[in-house]
Amino acid sequence: MPSEYRAAFANSLSGFKPANLIGTVNSRGQTNLAIMTSVVHLGSHPPLFMLIVRPGGEDRHTLRNIIETGTYTINHVNAEIIENAHQTAASYHAYESEFAKTGLIEEWLGNFSAPFVKQAKIKMAMQLREHKELSINKTHMVIGEATLIIVPDGSQYENGAVNIVEAGSVAISGLDSYHDPRLIMRLAYAVPDQPPRHLD
Amino acid sequence: MPSEYRAAFANSLSGFKPANLIGTVNSRGQTNLAIMTSVVHLGSHPPLFMLIVRPGGEDRHTLRNIIETGTYTINHVNAEIIENAHQTAASYHAYESEFAKTGLIEEWLGNFSAPFVKQAKIKMAMQLREHKELSINKTHMVIGEATLIIVPDGSQYENGAVNIVEAGSVAISGLDSYHDPRLIMRLAYAVPDQPPRHLD
Repeated sequence: MPSEYRAAFANSLSGFKPANLIGTVNSRGQTNLAIMTSVVHLGSHPPLFMLIVRPGGEDRHTLRNIIETGTYTINHVNAEIIENAHQTAASYHAYESEFAKTGLIEEWLGNFSAPFVKQAKIKMAMQLREHKELSINKTHMVIGEATLIIVPDGSQYENGAVNIVEAGSVAISGLDSYHDPRLIMRLAYAVPDQPPRHLD
Repeated sequence: MPSEYRAAFANSLSGFKPANLIGTVNSRGQTNLAIMTSVVHLGSHPPLFMLIVRPGGEDRHTLRNIIETGTYTINHVNAEIIENAHQTAASYHAYESEFAKTGLIEEWLGNFSAPFVKQAKIKMAMQLREHKELSINKTHMVIGEATLIIVPDGSQYENGAVNIVEAGSVAISGLDSYHDPRLIMRLAYAVPDQPPRHLD
């Protein structure tokens, strides 16, 4: 298989992925924004999320900024900003900010040092907790703790989960496909030898 | 926040997640099947995928089996088997197989030692490459290489990606919500200072 074909194939095999914009800034105030599909929930007490960052390409500015400042933001891509978000993957020069280039607006909240995306409805301020290069293929594991979490008013289910469909969050498959996930069903906590119970 | 509320909240914040069934067997031939939402693409040359496994609960049988045999399978949950897949999360005894209990059928392919899910359309045989407990919160990072990949005939786009919508794969949000992701758009590789280009 040719290399690009193989990459598109492998990227589609894990299933649907979250669409997040990672906002960072370097020590000279230059901002950066990058779309990533590798955010994974790692724990809830405290809220920890892992991010896998590739060593080359556009991602390297994001990684360098996270290590330099110890902070970053995670912003959900919603249906209104798909094209802007995708465009952040273009190879801009280090002195150019993807914010200025893509129409996504920098938002600075409180005294947090990294920029949020104004158009995002769900966003988190992240403090770097651990960074490690994985020897197996030189990708980088970045673990952060959410220290500020912003979700739309009234968007939480009774159990605490955010209704991310209502917030317009999208999913990605492969490298280029954006999806609008309709709710099929919600199921109660599974119990042995009892049939699955639907939630309203 | 109460602990369960906090867990549901945090689990919803990374965005949409893939829905995969992890098939394993122990050295005495006892099979296990567990739904997990933490599979992440790690690399394409070779095809590597990371899985985050919690240290307790049902996941511990999966983890023990992967370490014992060095193999596991990743099977996409599709819309027809959502309830069966969700039921694998119930706390069955170690001597009970989630296959027998949930109506999902064991499939043994070639001489690969771990069971696949017969009803799944996209599935991979995985060889364990690295396992590490993350000191930050005692979750386990499991990295595996796909040594056999099964996808439906004619399901690949021209660029190599599998059309996982057509294969019926579903997405999960939070701990209990299953989604059917409709395609909104496909976008070509992003290029600086050129508008996003739509793919057919």
